[in-house]
Amino acid sequence: MLASKLYAPTLREVPSDADVVSQQLMLRAGFMRKVANGLYSFLPLGWRSIKKIEAIIREEMDRSGAQEVMMPILQPADIWKESGRWNAYGAEMMRINDRHDVEYCLGPTHEEMITTLVKNEINSYRQLPVNLYQIQSKFRDERRPRYGLMRSREFIMKDGYSFDIDDAAADVSYKTMYDAYSRIFTRCGLTFRPVEADSGAIGGSNTHEFMAIAEAGEADIIHCSACDYAANIEIGKPGIMKQVEEDLKELEVVDTPQASTIEAVAEMLNLPLEKTIKAVVYAIEDKVILAMVRGDHDVNEVAVQHAVNGSVEPEMATPEQLEKVGLTAGFISPVGLKQTDDFAIVVDESVMETYNVCGGANKADAHYININPKRDFNTEDIIVAPIRLITKDDVCPECHSPLEYSKGIEVGQVFKLGTKYSESLQATYLDQNGRPNAMVMGCYGIGVSRTLAAAIEQYHDENGIIWPRAIAPFEVVIVPINAKDEALMSTSTTIYDTLLNDKVDVLLDDRKDRAGVKFKDADLIGYPLRITVSKNTLESNEVEIRIRKTGEAINCPIGEVSGKVQELLSQL
Amino acid sequence: MLASKLYAPTLREVPSDADVVSQQLMLRAGFMRKVANGLYSFLPLGWRSIKKIEAIIREEMDRSGAQEVMMPILQPADIWKESGRWNAYGAEMMRINDRHDVEYCLGPTHEEMITTLVKNEINSYRQLPVNLYQIQSKFRDERRPRYGLMRSREFIMKDGYSFDIDDAAADVSYKTMYDAYSRIFTRCGLTFRPVEADSGAIGGSNTHEFMAIAEAGEADIIHCSACDYAANIEIGKPGIMKQVEEDLKELEVVDTPQASTIEAVAEMLNLPLEKTIKAVVYAIEDKVILAMVRGDHDVNEVAVQHAVNGSVEPEMATPEQLEKVGLTAGFISPVGLKQTDDFAIVVDESVMETYNVCGGANKADAHYININPKRDFNTEDIIVAPIRLITKDDVCPECHSPLEYSKGIEVGQVFKLGTKYSESLQATYLDQNGRPNAMVMGCYGIGVSRTLAAAIEQYHDENGIIWPRAIAPFEVVIVPINAKDEALMSTSTTIYDTLLNDKVDVLLDDRKDRAGVKFKDADLIGYPLRITVSKNTLESNEVEIRIRKTGEAINCPIGEVSGKVQELLSQL
Repeated sequence: MLASKLYAPTLREVPSDADVVSQQLMLRAGFMRKVANGLYSFLPLGWRSIKKIEAIIREEMDRSGAQEVMMPILQPADIWKESGRWNAYGAEMMRINDRHDVEYCLGPTHEEMITTLVKNEINSYRQLPVNLYQIQSKFRDERRPRYGLMRSREFIMKDGYSFDIDDAAADVSYKTMYDAYSRIFTRCGLTFRPVEADSGAIGGSNTHEFMAIAEAGEADIIHCSACDYAANIEIGKPGIMKQVEEDLKELEVVDTPQASTIEAVAEMLNLPLEKTIKAVVYAIEDKVILAMVRGDHDVNEVAVQHAVNGSVEPEMATPEQLEKVGLTAGFISPVGLKQTDDFAIVVDESVMETYNVCGGANKADAHYININPKRDFNTEDIIVAPIRLITKDDVCPECHSPLEYSKGIEVGQVFKLGTKYSESLQATYLDQNGRPNAMVMGCYGIGVSRTLAAAIEQYHDENGIIWPRAIAPFEVVIVPINAKDEALMSTSTTIYDTLLNDKVDVLLDDRKDRAGVKFKDADLIGYPLRITVSKNTLESNEVEIRIRKTGEAINCPIGEVSGKVQELLSQL
Repeated sequence: MLASKLYAPTLREVPSDADVVSQQLMLRAGFMRKVANGLYSFLPLGWRSIKKIEAIIREEMDRSGAQEVMMPILQPADIWKESGRWNAYGAEMMRINDRHDVEYCLGPTHEEMITTLVKNEINSYRQLPVNLYQIQSKFRDERRPRYGLMRSREFIMKDGYSFDIDDAAADVSYKTMYDAYSRIFTRCGLTFRPVEADSGAIGGSNTHEFMAIAEAGEADIIHCSACDYAANIEIGKPGIMKQVEEDLKELEVVDTPQASTIEAVAEMLNLPLEKTIKAVVYAIEDKVILAMVRGDHDVNEVAVQHAVNGSVEPEMATPEQLEKVGLTAGFISPVGLKQTDDFAIVVDESVMETYNVCGGANKADAHYININPKRDFNTEDIIVAPIRLITKDDVCPECHSPLEYSKGIEVGQVFKLGTKYSESLQATYLDQNGRPNAMVMGCYGIGVSRTLAAAIEQYHDENGIIWPRAIAPFEVVIVPINAKDEALMSTSTTIYDTLLNDKVDVLLDDRKDRAGVKFKDADLIGYPLRITVSKNTLESNEVEIRIRKTGEAINCPIGEVSGKVQELLSQL
């Protein structure tokens, strides 16, 4: 392709509302444009990269035995009502009525639809397993769309679904997809990590998120410095932190005027945070839940939900809810409190191992000191559970080595769904004995547009994007430093034709702009290799090949350019 | 691919609500499934064919200099209000509000969005021309979805848009797309015809529809038996049919009780239809329009709209509207009528060339005989225009040869839009003199899913589909007549590997079903070539290659299969 024909308007200025690097660079480099809040158009460069990601996904999905289909974006409300998710999905699901006032949604995911499709066609164990996928625009009406493609409202997703005869077979499908995903993200050039994750609202029993490691990520990951253990901190299992045993001092109330945070109390009383305990009050529907962790720990809301068998994620309790169960915000501890049908107390395991700690006195402007949970909490009124978030100070739950912490962008997720949807939508098959069984399902998603953004978050510098070769819009750009010079253009064109002929994805920057402008654009757009054709090197019948990633520049005889380019590309 | 792994459930029964052959066959052969009224899921076979059509489109669009982009499906209402189409589009446009009650539509087409995109980036004549396209699901809430993929509510469309400096340049873009479309449909194997068409609601000055010729088509096409002339009958220019001149007889009223159709009158008075004139009364908004054609002709509503410079398509007048302007339904002619601001009379040119004809007497149960329009119509009160539909009895407007009539499925359309959208959305560029000009636009659509349906309408027999090679889901199926026979399977696998290696798109039917079942499925699904591996031919080291299209079967030595297959495919 010729740059003079390419529709790739670059911007000098960083758009003011672009809040992450990938978004800024995609706008500046002419990869995409914003249409409205959370809605983007891909321009030719961005779309070329997306298509390369899609091609890699298709190859690896097909290779693993999955088959591509295409279901409608418009989904009848009926099937969502049958599965129970029409109401559960909330405001994030975009809903629309047709001219006859029949209700539909714009698919945020397709479990209901694929289950409905398959249940009418598959009757026998002989027809299983089946694994079907599609690559399609999905819709989620985010409360706060942000971070460009990472949290947009319309986004490209690969969603796949497997159907098996039983758990063991479903585990095989799960593993096949796990492996395919590993190959896909490896081929895309991402630095990623599969991490254990929470199965959340989608239901299911086993799940891994594929996390692209990047500062801009919204997910918190803990991983082992020695073994393969990695988990979303929501699911990371913290150990029990024991404190050095002390003599139990007498419980005492002290005045702590206005000190309604544990940090303020600790400062006021000159205590280290680990010698305090912290209360956070949640509500799940009408039930109020008091969660207690050590002052230096944080509450894991997912663990709180599990501890009380909550059907939905906990939300922070309102002042009205606190008042209803008699709690004094900022000054709460389990001492003297009783659980009821409307009120549960969940205490983290490590809290139970503290001695002589400080916590709320359950009245305004006062705290207890010398709380000893094993002595002072009524065990019949509390649930003891691991409800704190795992931290870097914990050790690996598998091999006890030190842990490390990263931020991650969730680019893929594999789920073992079990029979949640096949039961609610009656997707059964007859087994070898002619008895009906619910199919065991898995579902597998890849954020295609998000993968593009994640790659940029990982690979950029102050001058622009540094594309992994496999998903670069072009692998090579040829820059004649003066497009009006016939000798330079003639050499450039010869190299261009040779590379095209050798199946290299190459752009010839034939624009009549100054060399500086073209170099800046090449760095900004981030082609893996730049071939500079200038009078200097042409004298010795050479051109310069520059590697975007390392900045290294090599002079190469014109006749050997194609071989050298292919050699360099294979190393990128 | 192995048939035992392929998700392609075939049906024995023709689904009762499938109203055209393509829909029936796609359902029976396992290419797609119905989700809801006008909504379909593509199964793997159908999706393979769609992807082949898309690949052909991409190749030809890219070759013609167009560049692929991807705009959101969700479109802000604002830009449609700016262009004036938010209201004009009516119930066919699907509208949706987001969680903040901001209005959007699901894109039925993207003129507004692409114009908005381009206008912010292109400032100078130096940046033009630009031609951008996308392949995407589109949404139109049809009043009556029908004919499967031919009139569905969510469908796959290639939509493209060109921007030029002036009319002459836009004509070049138009011609480039016209040629690309011709290549695309030729490569897809369709029998098609580009026909002149009406530009309709989208606006614009020049347009061709690409019609796949098929009985199931909804469009009426007239084309010349000798030259290239072809037109949608809505736009076909009828000549003036002259009648043999007669002495003008005296106007006379005759009783025609209950004869309120021209056919009834002709029968009652024993007149040939061409000796009668027929009234059809329309309304465009509040204006009533009396259209008169010969009794043996039909009214062209598009021509009526043009004749009165109507802004929208005419609708049939209501009884109230007729009464308001004093017309007596069933007994109307222009004789004695006067035009007003609310009432226009449009008379077809051929009506003016009739003698002593019969028409309504403008009172109930009575007709005039011996109307002579040139004598009896007040020329100041009528508009004379070519408002009849062209018929097979006309001659070619270009070369005067006989015309032929076909039904067509509109699979593509090229439009010269002019400046309708660039003016309403202010998409201007600065010309060489620094003066702002509106860009001259074109838009170009291909119904991708409809192309698939059209191919099946054209190529099928009582046993199933007969795919053109380029868009068949697989080019070749290998059928070992007994999959449990190791010798047959071994030969089949060898041939399969050889063909795969030679880049032939081949399916191996390794299912353990009876040969008859596999043959029936092969015919139904419509693979262009079937290789039968049986003991009979294996004795002489041969297999049978059968051509689906002709039914011809050839025995071929096993070592020569790949060469023969490629030779046969190249002829299909």
